[in-house]
Amino acid sequence: MPDIEALIAAHVRDVPDYPQAGVLFKDITPLLGDADAFGDVIEAMAAIFGPVDKVVGIEARGFILAAPVAYEIRAGFVPVRKKGKLPSATFAQEYDLEYGSAVLEVHQDAFAAGDRVLIVDDVLATGGTARATASLIQRAGAQVVGIAVLMELSFLKGREAVGDLEVRSLLTV
Amino acid sequence: MPDIEALIAAHVRDVPDYPQAGVLFKDITPLLGDADAFGDVIEAMAAIFGPVDKVVGIEARGFILAAPVAYEIRAGFVPVRKKGKLPSATFAQEYDLEYGSAVLEVHQDAFAAGDRVLIVDDVLATGGTARATASLIQRAGAQVVGIAVLMELSFLKGREAVGDLEVRSLLTV
Repeated sequence: MPDIEALIAAHVRDVPDYPQAGVLFKDITPLLGDADAFGDVIEAMAAIFGPVDKVVGIEARGFILAAPVAYEIRAGFVPVRKKGKLPSATFAQEYDLEYGSAVLEVHQDAFAAGDRVLIVDDVLATGGTARATASLIQRAGAQVVGIAVLMELSFLKGREAVGDLEVRSLLTV
Repeated sequence: MPDIEALIAAHVRDVPDYPQAGVLFKDITPLLGDADAFGDVIEAMAAIFGPVDKVVGIEARGFILAAPVAYEIRAGFVPVRKKGKLPSATFAQEYDLEYGSAVLEVHQDAFAAGDRVLIVDDVLATGGTARATASLIQRAGAQVVGIAVLMELSFLKGREAVGDLEVRSLLTV
């Protein structure tokens, strides 16, 4: 395993003023596009927590890391999606995010009672989506083990916003 | 390897009148949520074509299958996203889909010249997104090997719509 922090830092591209003026966006697409870097990062994320029953990914970018992590640790994958995108009965949760607010949903039957669930996402920013996602998982009858993220933007204090939810990140900036 | 067609058929849920009246939606979330079924399907999709340099996933549901396939075959992953969601310079392509029309984009620098690229998606319906995605890949200087899908809805004649693009599916309904 290479130095994973250096690997991530070398493959993430800073894009100024996206999605709006004054924001420095962390673009992970160069990392995803490099077969070796992508493989190493998925292996590292899969190793952050122990085995779980399900991995939850948050639409849309979160799917790209969460689904391979689920595959690697042989867990089921559950999508948390934006309002109206899941076809069956859902629980819904409004949340604040860095650039506005929105609603996330999960299928009511996505989990078996007591399932141990890991949330995987690319970036922990303000923590709004993570907190909403944890709430949805609990309402659906499962247990949140923690959240594994590629990058934590510590200046946005997401770790404080998520309360008791255990956050582990590969890189803190 | 189990009978993959039977496995998929047993884990896909038909949802009537979603996203609009008269449409019978194929909900793959029960398949994704079953660890063994999800793992078997990713393995089967990864085996459909030979090795490639990059796997392309189409936002958002397509990411859930394409990213683990990229990981399994040790390829890079490239997201094709809806308009405005990619932070750097893009190529854009308008397309028709089953329930309207929209624009897909890819980063202009997503591929190395001559990269061999596999498109992975959940469902081949009318073929509009597949055709637009293949066009974007070619404009970005790479070569499309084919498209691997979980399910082909043959009554929508997507295979005819995509022309020379080679389509291989695990299940045809």
